Amino acid sequence: VFKNSKRGLATAKVPSSLAASLDTFVDRHIGPEDNELVYMVKQLGYDSVDAFVDATVPQHIRVASSSVSNETIPSLSESQLFSRARELAEANKPFKSYIGMGYHNAVVPPVILRNIMESPAWYTPYTPYQPEISQGRLESLVNFQAMIMSLTSMDIANASLLDEATAAAEGMVLAFVHSGSKKRTFFVDDGVSPQTLAVLRTRAKGFGISLVIGDASTALQADSLRADLCGVLVQYPDVNGNVQDFGALAQSVHDAKALIVCATDLLALTMLKPPGEWGADVVVGNSARFGVPAGYGGPHAAFFACRDALKRKMPGRLIGLSRDTEGNPAYRLALQTREQHIRREKATSNICTSQALLANMAAMYAIYHGPTGLERIARKVHALTQLFKSLLEKSGYTVTNKDFFDTLTIDVSGPAKTAEVVHQTSVAARINLRKIDDTHVGVTFDESVGLEDIITLANIFANAANAPLISPLSLSTENVDSLAIPVDLRRTSKFLLHPVFNSHHSETEMLRYIYHLQNKDLGLVHAMIPLGSCTMKLNSTSSMIPLTFPEFGNVHPFAPMDQVAGYLQVIKELEEDLCKITGFHACSLQPNSGAAGEYTGLSVIRAYHESRGEGHRNICLIPVSAHGTNPASAVMAGLKVVPVKSLADGSLDLEDLKEKATKYKDSLAAFMITYPSTFGVFEDGVQEACKIIHNNGGQVYLDGANLNAQIGVTNPATCGGDVCHMNLHKTFAIPHGGGGPGVGPICVAEHLAPFLPTHPVVPVGEAQAINAVSAAPFGSASILLISWAYIKMLGGEGLSDSTKAALLNANYMAHRLKDHYSLRYKNKNGRVAHELLIDLHEFDKAAGLKVNDFAKRLQDYGFHPPTCSWPISTCMLIEPTESESLEEIDRFCDAMIQIRKEAEDVITGKQPKDNNLLKNAPHTISVLTAERWDRPYSREVAAYPTPWLRQHKFWPTVSRIDDAYGDLHLIVRPL
Amino acid sequence: VFKNSKRGLATAKVPSSLAASLDTFVDRHIGPEDNELVYMVKQLGYDSVDAFVDATVPQHIRVASSSVSNETIPSLSESQLFSRARELAEANKPFKSYIGMGYHNAVVPPVILRNIMESPAWYTPYTPYQPEISQGRLESLVNFQAMIMSLTSMDIANASLLDEATAAAEGMVLAFVHSGSKKRTFFVDDGVSPQTLAVLRTRAKGFGISLVIGDASTALQADSLRADLCGVLVQYPDVNGNVQDFGALAQSVHDAKALIVCATDLLALTMLKPPGEWGADVVVGNSARFGVPAGYGGPHAAFFACRDALKRKMPGRLIGLSRDTEGNPAYRLALQTREQHIRREKATSNICTSQALLANMAAMYAIYHGPTGLERIARKVHALTQLFKSLLEKSGYTVTNKDFFDTLTIDVSGPAKTAEVVHQTSVAARINLRKIDDTHVGVTFDESVGLEDIITLANIFANAANAPLISPLSLSTENVDSLAIPVDLRRTSKFLLHPVFNSHHSETEMLRYIYHLQNKDLGLVHAMIPLGSCTMKLNSTSSMIPLTFPEFGNVHPFAPMDQVAGYLQVIKELEEDLCKITGFHACSLQPNSGAAGEYTGLSVIRAYHESRGEGHRNICLIPVSAHGTNPASAVMAGLKVVPVKSLADGSLDLEDLKEKATKYKDSLAAFMITYPSTFGVFEDGVQEACKIIHNNGGQVYLDGANLNAQIGVTNPATCGGDVCHMNLHKTFAIPHGGGGPGVGPICVAEHLAPFLPTHPVVPVGEAQAINAVSAAPFGSASILLISWAYIKMLGGEGLSDSTKAALLNANYMAHRLKDHYSLRYKNKNGRVAHELLIDLHEFDKAAGLKVNDFAKRLQDYGFHPPTCSWPISTCMLIEPTESESLEEIDRFCDAMIQIRKEAEDVITGKQPKDNNLLKNAPHTISVLTAERWDRPYSREVAAYPTPWLRQHKFWPTVSRIDDAYGDLHLIVRPL
Ligand SMILES: Cc1ncc(COP(=O)(O)O)c(C=O)c1O
Ligand SMILES: Cc1ncc(COP(=O)(O)O)c(C=O)c1O
Ligand SMILES: O=C([O-])O
Repeated sequence: VFKNSKRGLATAKVPSSLAASLDTFVDRHIGPEDNELVYMVKQLGYDSVDAFVDATVPQHIRVASSSVSNETIPSLSESQLFSRARELAEANKPFKSYIGMGYHNAVVPPVILRNIMESPAWYTPYTPYQPEISQGRLESLVNFQAMIMSLTSMDIANASLLDEATAAAEGMVLAFVHSGSKKRTFFVDDGVSPQTLAVLRTRAKGFGISLVIGDASTALQADSLRADLCGVLVQYPDVNGNVQDFGALAQSVHDAKALIVCATDLLALTMLKPPGEWGADVVVGNSARFGVPAGYGGPHAAFFACRDALKRKMPGRLIGLSRDTEGNPAYRLALQTREQHIRREKATSNICTSQALLANMAAMYAIYHGPTGLERIARKVHALTQLFKSLLEKSGYTVTNKDFFDTLTIDVSGPAKTAEVVHQTSVAARINLRKIDDTHVGVTFDESVGLEDIITLANIFANAANAPLISPLSLSTENVDSLAIPVDLRRTSKFLLHPVFNSHHSETEMLRYIYHLQNKDLGLVHAMIPLGSCTMKLNSTSSMIPLTFPEFGNVHPFAPMDQVAGYLQVIKELEEDLCKITGFHACSLQPNSGAAGEYTGLSVIRAYHESRGEGHRNICLIPVSAHGTNPASAVMAGLKVVPVKSLADGSLDLEDLKEKATKYKDSLAAFMITYPSTFGVFEDGVQEACKIIHNNGGQVYLDGANLNAQIGVTNPATCGGDVCHMNLHKTFAIPHGGGGPGVGPICVAEHLAPFLPTHPVVPVGEAQAINAVSAAPFGSASILLISWAYIKMLGGEGLSDSTKAALLNANYMAHRLKDHYSLRYKNKNGRVAHELLIDLHEFDKAAGLKVNDFAKRLQDYGFHPPTCSWPISTCMLIEPTESESLEEIDRFCDAMIQIRKEAEDVITGKQPKDNNLLKNAPHTISVLTAERWDRPYSREVAAYPTPWLRQHKFWPTVSRIDDAYGDLHLIVRPL
Repeated sequence: VFKNSKRGLATAKVPSSLAASLDTFVDRHIGPEDNELVYMVKQLGYDSVDAFVDATVPQHIRVASSSVSNETIPSLSESQLFSRARELAEANKPFKSYIGMGYHNAVVPPVILRNIMESPAWYTPYTPYQPEISQGRLESLVNFQAMIMSLTSMDIANASLLDEATAAAEGMVLAFVHSGSKKRTFFVDDGVSPQTLAVLRTRAKGFGISLVIGDASTALQADSLRADLCGVLVQYPDVNGNVQDFGALAQSVHDAKALIVCATDLLALTMLKPPGEWGADVVVGNSARFGVPAGYGGPHAAFFACRDALKRKMPGRLIGLSRDTEGNPAYRLALQTREQHIRREKATSNICTSQALLANMAAMYAIYHGPTGLERIARKVHALTQLFKSLLEKSGYTVTNKDFFDTLTIDVSGPAKTAEVVHQTSVAARINLRKIDDTHVGVTFDESVGLEDIITLANIFANAANAPLISPLSLSTENVDSLAIPVDLRRTSKFLLHPVFNSHHSETEMLRYIYHLQNKDLGLVHAMIPLGSCTMKLNSTSSMIPLTFPEFGNVHPFAPMDQVAGYLQVIKELEEDLCKITGFHACSLQPNSGAAGEYTGLSVIRAYHESRGEGHRNICLIPVSAHGTNPASAVMAGLKVVPVKSLADGSLDLEDLKEKATKYKDSLAAFMITYPSTFGVFEDGVQEACKIIHNNGGQVYLDGANLNAQIGVTNPATCGGDVCHMNLHKTFAIPHGGGGPGVGPICVAEHLAPFLPTHPVVPVGEAQAINAVSAAPFGSASILLISWAYIKMLGGEGLSDSTKAALLNANYMAHRLKDHYSLRYKNKNGRVAHELLIDLHEFDKAAGLKVNDFAKRLQDYGFHPPTCSWPISTCMLIEPTESESLEEIDRFCDAMIQIRKEAEDVITGKQPKDNNLLKNAPHTISVLTAERWDRPYSREVAAYPTPWLRQHKFWPTVSRIDDAYGDLHLIVRPL
């Protein structure tokens, strides 16, 4: 079917050659087998897959099949991939890290590693937009929120952000907005980590905020500063390990009507007075040290907590407790349906994909250890730090921070002369320390550190100072109860009092709690999740396994470059492959999400304009059909959004575009376009649109969320773009993790390459680079392995074939549904792209049946509903991906068609408008087994509308959720 | 609570010392926290755990707490365990193996590795005695049976045996029994693997079968032989790679009214005419090459298939298709309830625990690849073998087997002079070949072998012969279609035609099928499984992880000893620790199950008697309360079983014992005793009983199934035993795997040590050793890692504390239930051991309610029922283990108490005797949501008898199974 197809297990009994691999990944990745592909193509009226693709993708944007082929990207079998991954893992040198700076060595409880991080039941679901089939991870994310609120003593916390640095930037922007966007000075204490500062610099630019850096305890007295001050950021403990009392500062900041934002450390907060108790308005940080591997920088879940008064300005997703139609408590995404927290051009944050899976891991870690367990860990870490300080002093060193939790800054100038000597000695012992300057070295301890480690390390320092070695026998190891924390800064309040943190401390209990939650959630392990624009494809086990090799997990993002050769090779190969796929010149893997990619790409465009003396260009044209993150990102990049219309056939209104491009000719910065469009069609006019923009001095940003429709048949460069982001968590098979992690790298044309982001600690950018957009130089580095593996295993041909199969699956689905639902848009040949938009407005008109009624009824059929009411409120956007088999697609279509019939009964009056199968959906076991049954249809029809459901039913655990109630009574803690 | 307890996360906020580990395993392993243990002890009326233990275990058998302490077995934290396991893994040298002899390199499909082998949902459940909550693995095991039947072309196959060698032995015994136990000659072809032959030798002894070894194609003409012939064993292909046509032989064997047993290879059968088509009566083999790692010998699932006429003599478990009370199809264990296939002293097989998990893996592998995929693998392996042969011949070697599938025997005498030269060259290249003799070398290829491997290997041979090296470029790699298999022996029949083998070929489909099945099964991930005598405790993730290190997985059992230093160290440490725990002198890890341990121990006793000229001793005394495997094992070891009575209080009738011991004084071989008894009590008289036996010339075999009640408080040696087996899959936390794998090592007193089993290829025994009892020298070596890790992490103190907690949990449960159910046995202080036996006969008498009615109703409460009707038909045997928390135990007791009330309603006539909550249990969703409901109780009471079930319900997927129907209509294939 496909050229040189190795698929089709049903026919090829004999391997094509002795050299042919037996474990070819593409055979496992693409759902339909060869004969099924042939059948589908025929149903659509074509002779071949190629003829079908020709009718689907405009001829003039097609690329030569050689551009993404097995010559350009050779394919590895699954076992070859493992060997290669092992080889690269061994090229890393996972030295013991005491670098700190926000990244710690993790001790992942094995039960969490295996049953969350490595479990498809947890990593394959999507963001919990369908709460009735997502109560498990909703509860887990509420636990995360509760954990953050309790440890920080803040009123409210969201369900994770991308990293500590961007969370701090969100805090800065909140402070700015809180001033009515009037006061533009934001003060950053010099104890803040350099990566946080760098991201603040980048982000401040777009909003026109001016950063002042200094010693917050002294500098803020200046009246000049105070007048325009919107907020202050402090770090607690700071990057050098200092623990400072910010109580007076908070008071003074509040007196200036500004906000105080505090970056902090969750483990330290088990022993330190929490920021909420000394007046912080916003508290941010990274939860990774709660059992999430460093992974060369991520992914990790950041947190964001604030005072109640600020909650409506809080970025990101918030889980709330509401109730269902039966009056039972039920969780759901609060204050939003789909990304309504991203308020398009009115937004101040573009956060969409966040770090759900990692937030779940951290919350489970806290549940497993409980408050007492966490305190034991903190106390031991602290006591070891104290012991280490005393040993250092014996060798003649001076520790410059008096108060500390787990981090010491050491003046080495006396005994060891230079920091270099210390670093050389430590590296020889396979140990990394923090490089501060020529005479200062930093160390940070964590849960993974034992007494032996402390002795080894102390002797390295002793050695460097030619001081006598320490004898372990001479140490007192019993004294762990004294504290090097000022009395006023010690925590006295209890924390994590909720029963969930005090019940699951044995592995058996923990495991059962994990399963109890996961069994409530529909993931790819159960059925298709045909969410349009989300590309819920197979997340293969083979691509997930290298992630948990310790040589990839236990790597600090600021480890010396010569220790990370394996990672750098993966990064290089992935960047190169993404460039081949997009047709672009260079790549940055730093952005941690699609939206972050958008922001980065637009910032790069701005830097490019500035470099040409056109820094004034600030207009961004965006089609009305665009995803909410596009305008939000544009605003964050300091651009003004001007919408562009669509035509009745769904295509971009080129006339309107031309008019606006011409009108803003002198200030046009960029045009953002999603291709194929969010309406699910390859439009003919894309190249022309890009030409219009270029002719008017603008740059074209291509939103690559739909790149799965393009690979090997067209590419963003050919379409006319200058930059695009990819959602590796869509097209390149990083699992969605129930709402994250994601990676949103950007690829750019040659002229934009000099501006790709750099990093303050690991200088990955060139001279003209924009500042960092993420805390880590390569963003969520560890999960890059997944996309790398995915691409390497498919090879160029498998990638192209996957795109073709994705197009075919969607078109076959459109074909099966077209007589039952109105297909909103298609191209002139009647073809959709990799997804289809069906419009349900007629049902509303005829019988008051809304999109949501169809969606909830689909749950009764055991399916995750498609994307609802986006990009058009009356529509469903359906994307099957290449990984779904013909059988599953037919099963889904059968369900849709039968629901159509159920709707007909309402339209014809057979069933009442307000009490029918759709309006009452989903039906829970609880409702169906209740004594009372007074509905105008039978229990059986509600539960098992088709015979295959007797075997394949997935049960919603709550009835339809009452959103209005939840919005009125916002509760963000567990029941 | 316990001495130096580190448990009690609720209280100890401060670590006891800087040297204290934070990830102490015992804190996770024992369910109740310290305050809960204190509470339970108090409820029972004691001041301390020690006082409680003193009242529970007889004083005179107590051992000093120092015998199992942290001095004798130091404790490692979870992370220390990982480091140690990695260290030992690296001490193994996993050379590429071409040794063959029944063991291959596995390519485990990652989706199966992660979601079956590494998934607690699959590895924690028990044997599916409760079919209503086990339909998932029952279906999977039926798939295994179907796969075996199809590939072998036999009428019926069971759901796995322990290994190929014991399966062949079962075949031999079947042949013997089939002759009416009259014909005692069993012929073994000289192409049979040495380890199979060794196990046959051991097993033949007990039955008085005489083995004749020779060339079956010629030797069997002798009339003298044919007269007494009960059966013949051939291997197809044989150990040297030969593929021989046994059709004529089969005819001739049948003419002699004997049976032909064939050991074979599943992959080869995709290309070879299946044994069922040329007349085999029994077909056995190992399914490991279907995706199960070699693991230094196991565990692997063996198979056993036979003609329909022999099915009632087939050993092991058989899954059948029956129907439930609603008339829906449903699977269940056929022809048995609990181990009724083990017919006590009438048995010819003692197989109980088998290899369910590995059978599931192999079946899933076949499902994933499908018939065409399997054939592609076979064809490539075969083609590579052909290519290799041609390359060898180019270098001047002779291959001695003309016809072959994947194995060649190479005469090296010409070109290389000696085999030693070849082995030296290959070992230097990190490659192992089969050592045959001074001039012959063997190679076997498998799925893991690629073209490059063949070239490397060919060049090793070329090198050894000083022949020119092979250039890869000169090879034709396209010709994979010619076969080196005689036309008459090629397979022409299709196989694996059932849809299950033709539907799940994409990873997504496969994953969903795995989850579809697992969600039907109740495992430890859901709730307590309080099966008495089964010790369903926590199977920790930390102890499971080392198992999947490739350095442990990819090791051939016959690899040279100097390449397996890591394994040998694990084995040594485990043997030593088990000796410390049992108080014995030496240990053999070879037996693959508890029952195999019994057989081994009794065989060792027989050898001991023989060595003293008392080989005539053949009487084995066994209490009537013993597990069915005890008499079965005794019979297999050639002993005559004489039962010993119990007294009314459940204890052994010492008078009866004395009488029989004296009566059989001259022929007394052994006494088998389970301690604490299967009635769940520590009897006072155990030492006296042993003395009686010893005084009469017998040896004492202690069945250690209940060892979890003994550790650190007593031990089998102190009780008076000479030998005991342990079920590592009970006491030492190897998961039950849904019915296996298991390990049943034996520990023996010093005088029995010389007789511990040896092995024909790896001589592990001493001069007086009995022959092998398993195919591999250390049995299921890879899972020994689990018990090793368990012991190392708990340390002596944690092991003892676990036992005490297990005793306490059981006694607390007895205390809570005693006013509601009649506790059948307790000791004079009112204490049970680690399990309790409740008698339900009064309910039968009063209202016709049987044990099964209570059990099925417990399913409605979300629990796995306890052991039913064993060891007493009217009883339930309940064992909570130390891993269950107080909350779970209380929840279980609440359920039992409430069911008691439901029973009361039947007794008092409130509910009819034939139509009530118990008789109709379990209630499925299907029944509860049906239109019609005409039961004398509500749907809600049926579904949710307690409020916590609204959150924690586990749903049976079928109604109660109709066993009688299934027995009448035996169907052993999937629906
Ligand atoms: C078209 C489009 N653009 C951008 C995004 C934002 O991507 P992310 O969620 O990775 O931030 C999405 C996410 O669904 C999208 O569909
Ligand atoms: C008392 C007793 N003895 C022996 C056995 C047999 O052990 P296995 O199933 O490991 O063969 C069992 C199994 O439950 C048992 O309970
Ligand atoms: O399987 C058992 O007989 O316990």
